Amino acid sequence: MAMASRALAAWRQLGLVALLPHLLLLLDAAGARQCFWPGQAPEDPGCLSWRVMVEANNARGWRTVPAQCVGYVKGYMTRGQYLRDLAGVMEQASGYADQIAAGAGADPDGLDAWVFDIDDTCLSNLPYYETKQFGAYDPSAFKAWASKEACQGIPPVLGLFMALLDKGFKVFLLSGRDEETLGPCTAGNLEAEGFFGYERLIMRTPEYRGQSSSVFKSAMRKQLVDEGYRIRGNVGDQWSDLQGDCAGDRVFKIPNPMYFVP
Amino acid sequence: MAMASRALAAWRQLGLVALLPHLLLLLDAAGARQCFWPGQAPEDPGCLSWRVMVEANNARGWRTVPAQCVGYVKGYMTRGQYLRDLAGVMEQASGYADQIAAGAGADPDGLDAWVFDIDDTCLSNLPYYETKQFGAYDPSAFKAWASKEACQGIPPVLGLFMALLDKGFKVFLLSGRDEETLGPCTAGNLEAEGFFGYERLIMRTPEYRGQSSSVFKSAMRKQLVDEGYRIRGNVGDQWSDLQGDCAGDRVFKIPNPMYFVP
Repeated sequence: MAMASRALAAWRQLGLVALLPHLLLLLDAAGARQCFWPGQAPEDPGCLSWRVMVEANNARGWRTVPAQCVGYVKGYMTRGQYLRDLAGVMEQASGYADQIAAGAGADPDGLDAWVFDIDDTCLSNLPYYETKQFGAYDPSAFKAWASKEACQGIPPVLGLFMALLDKGFKVFLLSGRDEETLGPCTAGNLEAEGFFGYERLIMRTPEYRGQSSSVFKSAMRKQLVDEGYRIRGNVGDQWSDLQGDCAGDRVFKIPNPMYFVP
Repeated sequence: MAMASRALAAWRQLGLVALLPHLLLLLDAAGARQCFWPGQAPEDPGCLSWRVMVEANNARGWRTVPAQCVGYVKGYMTRGQYLRDLAGVMEQASGYADQIAAGAGADPDGLDAWVFDIDDTCLSNLPYYETKQFGAYDPSAFKAWASKEACQGIPPVLGLFMALLDKGFKVFLLSGRDEETLGPCTAGNLEAEGFFGYERLIMRTPEYRGQSSSVFKSAMRKQLVDEGYRIRGNVGDQWSDLQGDCAGDRVFKIPNPMYFVP
């Protein structure tokens, strides 16, 4: 994933992004698909039910992955199904963006906006959560991990991000990460993984410390709407990214069975 | 499913409902589980991705099950995973209802309400959609099917329905079915399958013909709230049951990969 993502970032710099869909098709046709989709995660029926409940927002407020599903979640995240699911969601988002860009509703005033969450939306924290065995959230350990700037970009999300910029959307990155302590390393990590050209990186300021992600993100989105932006799409791995005020005309839930943010 | 559901209805009439959880545990312990959970649906990875996208409301506006997933959907619905997923969702709903009933927020003014959709929430149309090969929606064929009063109750949903009545919730059944033509047969079908004791059956009146389900249901829920009810929970198999005005404090999405209602 790291290699794919760094390659994407390099291509971006070389202006070769337009070739990407063709290459993916070629890889597929050549049977190289197995390298990227290395097989199916073992679908324990109880853990599959649980995972689907998480994605449908039926299971809320959970603090850790159920003990009997830790191995399942690891398999899901690393053995292909996660990337397959993610690619499907990005395809839906891309199709929807095409409609806006091509439709009568498209407005060349530069105010069509798109919001992305960062953690486990643009950048992957899978290695961190694996080392923690998907245990309870630990703010200081997470901060230490994030400070390393070692998060890998998530290729299908970078693909959508770049396609949206190409179509003329203004992209906003909206993260509950603390701006004061993690601002520069987050910006650096994003840049290194190919996420550049966005309009604004919005992170948690001191006044929102201790507030829920949902409250903070609603306030930030409302501010964008007050500035005149139309939030056409919103992509996040948590339902708290996608609900509340000014959530966007359409929201896209990226799979995440690793943790729950209220 | 029909037998289980009719048995439940009969038990209700005999006042034996309180025994139900114990019996289910016994069945489980005795290994009879296989009769109800007859194995895992074959999880074609592409169709699994699609199904999860439907449940998470990432895939919208689809008219038929993708051709390559018709067999998968049939397997999912009939070979155990659907009932397993459904039971998980009902468990979440039941746990949430317990909190309200037991918590300081419980109010004995008789205004704590719960809304259920009918089709493929309380009553199953699986046999109908199987005969149609999950093809495009056909209003007159569906009306003919519904008129037969042959829909089977969905046991885990009946279990939640009865538990909510026991806890003192006012239950409202809210359906997009046409009241004039399908009112009596719908009420009869519900009764036969054990769904009785609810507060009101609300169906589509002539003034809402041609309106989307979402618009009609929002208006009906708003009316309940105007009457003073607090909609504590809302259960449906379509996101259009669960979004819009006065959707409820918490919503529960029942799996349905068979069709999409806007």
